[in-house]
Amino acid sequence: MNRNLGEFEIIKTYFSALALSEKGAFNLTDDAAVIAIPAGKCIVVTTDTIVQGTHFLSEDSPNNIAAKLLRVSLSDLAAMGSIPAYYNLSIAVNSNTKSDWFEAFALGLLADQKKYNITLIGGDTVATSGPITLTITALGLVDKGKTIRRSGAKFDDDIWVSGSIGDAALGLKVATGKLNQISEANKNYLRSRYFKPNPRTLLGPKLVGHVNSAIDISDGLIADLNHICETSNLGAKVQITDIPLSNAAKDVLSIKPDYIDLILGGGDDFELLFTADKSFQKIKKKLTRALDLNLTKIGSIISGDSIQIFDQYGEIYPLPKFGYAHF
Amino acid sequence: MNRNLGEFEIIKTYFSALALSEKGAFNLTDDAAVIAIPAGKCIVVTTDTIVQGTHFLSEDSPNNIAAKLLRVSLSDLAAMGSIPAYYNLSIAVNSNTKSDWFEAFALGLLADQKKYNITLIGGDTVATSGPITLTITALGLVDKGKTIRRSGAKFDDDIWVSGSIGDAALGLKVATGKLNQISEANKNYLRSRYFKPNPRTLLGPKLVGHVNSAIDISDGLIADLNHICETSNLGAKVQITDIPLSNAAKDVLSIKPDYIDLILGGGDDFELLFTADKSFQKIKKKLTRALDLNLTKIGSIISGDSIQIFDQYGEIYPLPKFGYAHF
Repeated sequence: MNRNLGEFEIIKTYFSALALSEKGAFNLTDDAAVIAIPAGKCIVVTTDTIVQGTHFLSEDSPNNIAAKLLRVSLSDLAAMGSIPAYYNLSIAVNSNTKSDWFEAFALGLLADQKKYNITLIGGDTVATSGPITLTITALGLVDKGKTIRRSGAKFDDDIWVSGSIGDAALGLKVATGKLNQISEANKNYLRSRYFKPNPRTLLGPKLVGHVNSAIDISDGLIADLNHICETSNLGAKVQITDIPLSNAAKDVLSIKPDYIDLILGGGDDFELLFTADKSFQKIKKKLTRALDLNLTKIGSIISGDSIQIFDQYGEIYPLPKFGYAHF
Repeated sequence: MNRNLGEFEIIKTYFSALALSEKGAFNLTDDAAVIAIPAGKCIVVTTDTIVQGTHFLSEDSPNNIAAKLLRVSLSDLAAMGSIPAYYNLSIAVNSNTKSDWFEAFALGLLADQKKYNITLIGGDTVATSGPITLTITALGLVDKGKTIRRSGAKFDDDIWVSGSIGDAALGLKVATGKLNQISEANKNYLRSRYFKPNPRTLLGPKLVGHVNSAIDISDGLIADLNHICETSNLGAKVQITDIPLSNAAKDVLSIKPDYIDLILGGGDDFELLFTADKSFQKIKKKLTRALDLNLTKIGSIISGDSIQIFDQYGEIYPLPKFGYAHF
């Protein structure tokens, strides 16, 4: 950071503009924000922290870092069926964080605020001797009693996912120079899926009342399905050939078939995984059209407490390591 | 951290117990918490981050660190006139953070949860290569339209403070071995004021409707008064001899009179500074009795945009450096 910039100047110069549209943010000049909640709504609260060197790299563009930070939390809000409303932001920055970093970071936030209709209402700015550490607490709104939970899966539910799976994990391979055999277009696509995930903020609220459980895929397809199974006290079976893949991912698998483990185990897709009874089939068509977003059935909820994955020969496929622990 | 402990185990082992009393925290096993807000209430949202080496020292007890983290935010909630309700917690820990640290830290949080009637509802746990970095987002409740703002000071308001001023700054001197001339009892008192501030969570809500502006003293008496003046477009005059001092602080000043600058400029007292018209005098007596807490008039709001400090001879005293910037 530019040593000439104090906390108050950083807030005033780069972040005040992000809080303009909400009066209760008081221009970021008070001790806290004050927010009125519409009658009949609950607030949904989620916190995520990303750390330089762990969740993003020093050379990543501040714009991408801003997008990742916000979208990770937006994805959590979507998984609960809530609509994004507000966020608080804490930034711990070090002596290498210069004013152009702040400027690009704030511009990235501003672009996403418009895209996702969410507003900064407060936060904190501190100095650290370590890596840049960014924490967001996002608030969403959902009708009282309508939240979608992880724990609501029912026996014989179909298991659905939005979009395509595994792109982010492959995008990380591309970003770290480990997937050179594919076309530039495919590389760009996969990279953008890693750096700029698309949280399903429009889909989530539309699932309310139509599905029994939901989660966003951040730890990995099977790891997150496991969260649903554990909290619902049920098992699941998944058909590998039913998992929706992008053309880029198909291309990768044609060259490196063992990367299927990245599709099953890799995180950061930020698609929604949800379970619903058979009647969801009817709503699915409307949703797909309205949102221009594929929804694909990949398996079913079964009794027991295990997840079974089946390959194209109907054989049991070994479970991937669950998620990726940052520890 | 113990390398054998993953994120989920840390949450389950140390933090789940802190979220038991709120159903909407879902045992910390879902994507987000869901909170119903009582009719007629607004939520007050504040975020604070503390960093090892900047805001606390490696050798500080995890119990004290937990107290400081929570109480800094509780103080912000109090300054807005709100009652503490919930908090989200993000912890970025490194390979030196062992399980006994987590245990003591969680016990510290638990003690303060009971003391201040606030409940953990969610958060994040990540690894960092740098210093331990802790972020809290606290939620309070206040009647709609009743929030106390910094910007509400009126011409001719009296300026009031709770408790005694400057103890925390002197406590930091004690903690860093720079005040050896005073008694052990005074050292202990000042140290505890630094490490375990008492946010005025009972006073804040009781000021609603009776005062025109309020702020908590975190940056320093004059720096925080300046925040009120700036946002209210007014000035202030303060009488040094009216500033309430603890016996320990008086003792320090008798040895080191120039430490008056620490009283005026030092931060972290987490007392409330507020302004009110003359009618507050009547309520003051009741409040002092009910809360067993001194409230002291230290000056008045004046026109203009400057703060004037007067010493015991009626002479203008130079302004301290505003607050302490951690940058």
